[in-house]
Amino acid sequence: MRQFAVIGLGRFGSSVARTLYNLGYDVLGIDSSEEKTQAMVDSVTHAVTADGTDEHTLKALGIRNFDVVIVSIGQDIQASILVTLILKELGVKHVVAKAQNDLHGKVLYKIGADRVVFPERDMGMRVAHNLVSSNILDYIELAPDFSIVEVAAVPEWYNKTLRELNMRTKYGLNVMAIKNNGNINISPKADDVVGEGDILIVIGSNDDIKKIEKLGEK
Amino acid sequence: MRQFAVIGLGRFGSSVARTLYNLGYDVLGIDSSEEKTQAMVDSVTHAVTADGTDEHTLKALGIRNFDVVIVSIGQDIQASILVTLILKELGVKHVVAKAQNDLHGKVLYKIGADRVVFPERDMGMRVAHNLVSSNILDYIELAPDFSIVEVAAVPEWYNKTLRELNMRTKYGLNVMAIKNNGNINISPKADDVVGEGDILIVIGSNDDIKKIEKLGEK
Ligand SMILES: Nc1ncnc2c1ncn2[C@@H]1O[C@H](COP(=O)(O)OP(=O)(O)OP(=O)(O)O)[C@@H](O)[C@H]1O
Ligand SMILES: Nc1ncnc2c1ncn2[C@@H]1O[C@H](COP(=O)(O)OP(=O)(O)OP(=O)(O)O)[C@@H](O)[C@H]1O
Ligand SMILES: [Ca+2]
Ligand SMILES: [Ca+2]
Ligand SMILES: [Ca+2]
Ligand SMILES: [Ca+2]
Repeated sequence: MRQFAVIGLGRFGSSVARTLYNLGYDVLGIDSSEEKTQAMVDSVTHAVTADGTDEHTLKALGIRNFDVVIVSIGQDIQASILVTLILKELGVKHVVAKAQNDLHGKVLYKIGADRVVFPERDMGMRVAHNLVSSNILDYIELAPDFSIVEVAAVPEWYNKTLRELNMRTKYGLNVMAIKNNGNINISPKADDVVGEGDILIVIGSNDDIKKIEKLGEK
Repeated sequence: MRQFAVIGLGRFGSSVARTLYNLGYDVLGIDSSEEKTQAMVDSVTHAVTADGTDEHTLKALGIRNFDVVIVSIGQDIQASILVTLILKELGVKHVVAKAQNDLHGKVLYKIGADRVVFPERDMGMRVAHNLVSSNILDYIELAPDFSIVEVAAVPEWYNKTLRELNMRTKYGLNVMAIKNNGNINISPKADDVVGEGDILIVIGSNDDIKKIEKLGEK
């Protein structure tokens, strides 16, 4: 079973740590703020208050034995770079680092980060795409031209069966699931009826998806 | 054409603003820090240095005429709540607010936010899921217990048909699409063969997804 360490337990780091722990993995959480580590004691295997730029502490914690270390220090770009450098020098195989901006990201890759993530930038792009159409609630890009989207049913779909809506022929889209009040039907049948409040999960080309985005345009 | 305003041009807010602007929409960007607005002058229609909690300024900027206002103030929870409240009182139809944590999110909904987003938490969950298994490439949470994931085919699946893999019975998962080299088959048939390099898009409960994540464990 792989072991993970997360250095920097802000909103992003704590979410990574908690998710990994809930998935059943061993997670060491490190933050220089005691408040942050205290808040995480029940959400990780070990929560340690320490400065991530302190090489001796990292060594003492046996950081080189962790399979993946996530550096999620935000504002303090210098600390984020220094911690990443130390981790790679100590021989950590896989270091994932959070970057503030493109320049920061480039530096992180240069000093050996194996993967750089831009959580705020990426979510900003997702949310913007979602906002442009009122009925597109979430989306995942499968390929430059293909996506899966969550679409809120528009009134003209209410009380129609999937057969009647015939999205396949009309829009080139496949309905893969229907959500309603937290229930999910993951194998919708042609006879299933779409109602108010339903959310359809559809897959298709971006051009075809745009056609149903338009239905939701205000 | 709808008009957007973004109050708070941090990493998340600036990404939302820039993406909307690049999609061709009118975007007003507001931040109390002149440095932030200066950095965005070429990425939005108008960048204004102003305090979002100042009702008179918001009125003067004609904020009620904007179709969607995104409140992306982070650390200062009080300011984020106050701005959201003012916007709803001024009659802004659709207010999207960024929350620090669950409690903050609940308060934002209570005072009228139409949508609350948790960019760091959501990306933290995504990144954690990606890290756990080398074969889970992306995922979208449909409900607390249900997700869609992109799974890289593992060697034991190669040259088998979907019928032979029988994911439905074996793992409770539905294969919704198969990706290969940028081509996507969005209505996979039981006779379709899975090969090396294929990526399967599957839908199912998180528990069921965990079973295939395990197959990709290093
Ligand atoms: N040298 C360090 N060693 C350990 N932890 C640190 C260090 N410097 C900062 N941190 C911690 O990293 C966490 C994230 O830092 P910060 O809040 O600046 O980033 P952020 O990008 O705004 O975070 P968020 O993920 O909440 O958006 C904080 O909890 C902070 O205490
Ligand atoms: N009252 C206010 N009016 C306008 N802008 C504000 C106000 N308070 C804070 N801001 C701006 O909001 C932006 C985001 O705030 P902050 O950096 O605290 O949030 P964050 O959640 O850490 O951001 P990020 O999206 O970078 O993770 C900053 O640029 C800040 O100047
Ligand atoms: Ca929307
Ligand atoms: Ca911050
Ligand atoms: Ca942040
Ligand atoms: Ca991976």
